[in-house]
Amino acid sequence: MITKNQIKYINSLQQKKFRSEHQSFIVEGAKSVLELLKSDFELELLFVTQEFFNNYEEFLEKLPIQSEIINQQELEKAGSYSSNNAALAVAKTKGNHELLVGENEYALILDDIRDPGNLGTIIRVGDWYGIHKIICSHSTVDFYNPKVIAATMGSFTRTNLYYTDLEVFIQQQQQSTPIYGTLLNGNNIHQTKFAKAGYIVIGNEANGISEGVEKLITDKITIPSFGGAESLNAGIATAVVLDNLRR
Amino acid sequence: MITKNQIKYINSLQQKKFRSEHQSFIVEGAKSVLELLKSDFELELLFVTQEFFNNYEEFLEKLPIQSEIINQQELEKAGSYSSNNAALAVAKTKGNHELLVGENEYALILDDIRDPGNLGTIIRVGDWYGIHKIICSHSTVDFYNPKVIAATMGSFTRTNLYYTDLEVFIQQQQQSTPIYGTLLNGNNIHQTKFAKAGYIVIGNEANGISEGVEKLITDKITIPSFGGAESLNAGIATAVVLDNLRR
Repeated sequence: MITKNQIKYINSLQQKKFRSEHQSFIVEGAKSVLELLKSDFELELLFVTQEFFNNYEEFLEKLPIQSEIINQQELEKAGSYSSNNAALAVAKTKGNHELLVGENEYALILDDIRDPGNLGTIIRVGDWYGIHKIICSHSTVDFYNPKVIAATMGSFTRTNLYYTDLEVFIQQQQQSTPIYGTLLNGNNIHQTKFAKAGYIVIGNEANGISEGVEKLITDKITIPSFGGAESLNAGIATAVVLDNLRR
Repeated sequence: MITKNQIKYINSLQQKKFRSEHQSFIVEGAKSVLELLKSDFELELLFVTQEFFNNYEEFLEKLPIQSEIINQQELEKAGSYSSNNAALAVAKTKGNHELLVGENEYALILDDIRDPGNLGTIIRVGDWYGIHKIICSHSTVDFYNPKVIAATMGSFTRTNLYYTDLEVFIQQQQQSTPIYGTLLNGNNIHQTKFAKAGYIVIGNEANGISEGVEKLITDKITIPSFGGAESLNAGIATAVVLDNLRR
């Protein structure tokens, strides 16, 4: 069963203020909860429907915490999903640890991504292309926002995010490390020979890369257009750049 | 000014049933309305704020219909946007005309795309890559859904959609025309040499390409994965395929 106080607590975690205070976040839905349970995130609470419990009983019984069986209405009352007939978990956040990028590794730098769906999609796309380190401006939406977690489709368990001052972060990198940025007048990405390691900067949905960060871009790249659309959204642009990087 | 009956009428156009009955649809927001006004869509109603009117007065006065100046609250009451301080138009739909694809041309085939945001994104991405013909299964979400129109960011004015039975449509094409489809066990898209003309099939968000359509795919292609994510969303997959097609 779930208590009124638990519902109140879980509801409060939809707000960043309370996530920070409790260092906890919500994960909802079958796919995301299953990925969470297989990850190294520390579990705090786990609520499941009878059906979900029956489907994963053996697996659930090996977990360090006991799952509580509740019904769909209670699950939806506690969480942010309008429809959830599977599971809801509360897990501990990981804190904001500095990310170091290896010699043959790429990381993303997100300059003011505001939309939770976009951040979630970028995390999912990064995971698809094997990129698991993302450096975010302080203005980028919170990783632990339930809408971000939902949009990652489980990829949040494989990706680390580090929120910092981007200009300071980039200036601390070795001078030889390329900082790629998607800008309007860059080199055609179809002709770009990517280095073995580096960073790819993705800008804000409406305003692109900020002035201060743009000055630190060493390699301007552009996705060529063949039609009338003026822009691509941030998640799409990330996918196209990473696909070109990986080919 | 806007009358109560006009608000009622415009509200009704959020439903497919009434869009079909009146053969009309809503376009909201500055960017989308401006693109509409420059397109060949037939205008029925146009409501703008004083600010929008002042910004585009010369342009608005050349239009075949007069724009009515109303305030932001009225605009939001009539339309589907929670925030709209610019414009709302009602235009006539174009009917469901068969699309023929030229000798050196590509078109998209959408097999049961259900999410309005995904369809809008696909239209926008298609427009970016110069693809302006989209054939849709009858189960694909309605082109004139306000959320689809919004997500296209104006690209709806440059793209034609044709709703039909996909299996019948594909079987009517010349045997030499390739039908590409993104499937799990296809050829690596990075090594694919695309023909000069053809179709690219994008499948449903959860279930992929339907069995009947899959049998008609002549060239199975796959976006290679380098990480842990199990899938890419339909809009992302479309962008990556089209980027590979155009390079």
